[in-house]
Amino acid sequence: MTQEEEEIVLLDYWPSPFGTMARIALVEKGVNYIHKFEDLSNKSPLLLEMNPVHHKIPVLVHKGKSICESNIIIQYIDEIWKNNFPLLPSEPYQRAKARFLVDFINKKVHGSSVKVWMGQKEEQENGKKELLEWSKFLEEELGDKLYFGGDVFGFVDIVLVPFYNWFIVFKTFANFNTIEIECPKLVMWGEKCLKRDSVCKSLPTSDQVYQAYLEFKKGWSHG
Amino acid sequence: MTQEEEEIVLLDYWPSPFGTMARIALVEKGVNYIHKFEDLSNKSPLLLEMNPVHHKIPVLVHKGKSICESNIIIQYIDEIWKNNFPLLPSEPYQRAKARFLVDFINKKVHGSSVKVWMGQKEEQENGKKELLEWSKFLEEELGDKLYFGGDVFGFVDIVLVPFYNWFIVFKTFANFNTIEIECPKLVMWGEKCLKRDSVCKSLPTSDQVYQAYLEFKKGWSHG
Repeated sequence: MTQEEEEIVLLDYWPSPFGTMARIALVEKGVNYIHKFEDLSNKSPLLLEMNPVHHKIPVLVHKGKSICESNIIIQYIDEIWKNNFPLLPSEPYQRAKARFLVDFINKKVHGSSVKVWMGQKEEQENGKKELLEWSKFLEEELGDKLYFGGDVFGFVDIVLVPFYNWFIVFKTFANFNTIEIECPKLVMWGEKCLKRDSVCKSLPTSDQVYQAYLEFKKGWSHG
Repeated sequence: MTQEEEEIVLLDYWPSPFGTMARIALVEKGVNYIHKFEDLSNKSPLLLEMNPVHHKIPVLVHKGKSICESNIIIQYIDEIWKNNFPLLPSEPYQRAKARFLVDFINKKVHGSSVKVWMGQKEEQENGKKELLEWSKFLEEELGDKLYFGGDVFGFVDIVLVPFYNWFIVFKTFANFNTIEIECPKLVMWGEKCLKRDSVCKSLPTSDQVYQAYLEFKKGWSHG
């Protein structure tokens, strides 16, 4: 195997929640990788070649082959480095449930968060209402467990924590503070995750996320 | 375990491509199940209870617990009845690739097909153009293999064949016939799949699909 084939490369964009998920999974598994950050307004030929369908980050390049879509990347990482800390549960029903929640977070929580980021007054308010509803659902799913999968940090936690980080920004930026009153278990879970080594190393700070948003916004107003 | 907990129930709607996928997977595994068809204009309390988030079919109820979302159901079926005919490849990269193609089909092929079904003139033409583009991509992915996973029928084939069935309807209904000229390997694959026992038993005929569409349309014009 050539050196190039052995290399593990993550094509990424640092404020992206989806990129963050892949980073956390790699750190949890103790995998060393080369981090290549993309300029999304001027995507690299490597990104276009490695994700010819969607042209999106994150892309994991392993043994010269590309794996795209964050939830597929996490499952791949779990299956390749299967002897380290497992990310998905082993029992089929629990695996199905984790996949369902991941899909829910990527669709619903992400979709409503985008409304809060981008929406004008009424749309932003709708986004906040939806986020509260999804948070209540997730609070119930979490119940009295330490993490979504039980006693150990895993797939669902990895996917939700970058959005929890957004919620913190939404507190100052969009006056989104109902979650603290209505979903105390979810907030406890989030604060615990934020202290975890793999999360600290991978997650942009709330300030960095907000700065990236302002940069984006400037781009639009000029675009 | 009570009799109710042992039962395997599929909540379904017979013209649905997503319901069809779950049916094919169950037949491939030789699993006996109780088929409950839903009236989507008047959803059953069981469906609302078993899929409280999306209220959508298909839902697999097994040991009293529900599994939702067709691609998650197929993976669950593969993991529970793992000693029968495997549906997903065993090698992690091939598994990631299968998951990527399934996601692509469910998003892109389904999305463009809906434009052909529902769209007015220009939108329908756009849907047909997109479908041809996706079909060319899939033709290339298939290459000279018998099935998407190689020599055996599996996950990607199960998810694509209900849409291939739609393509046949689109030939008469929307003059969509370029695929036969441009994607001969995909057509050969599709015709081979249509003769497969699990597919024959699960797939509505093209005529039934078109009739269901006309019923739908009548509903809208009254709605």
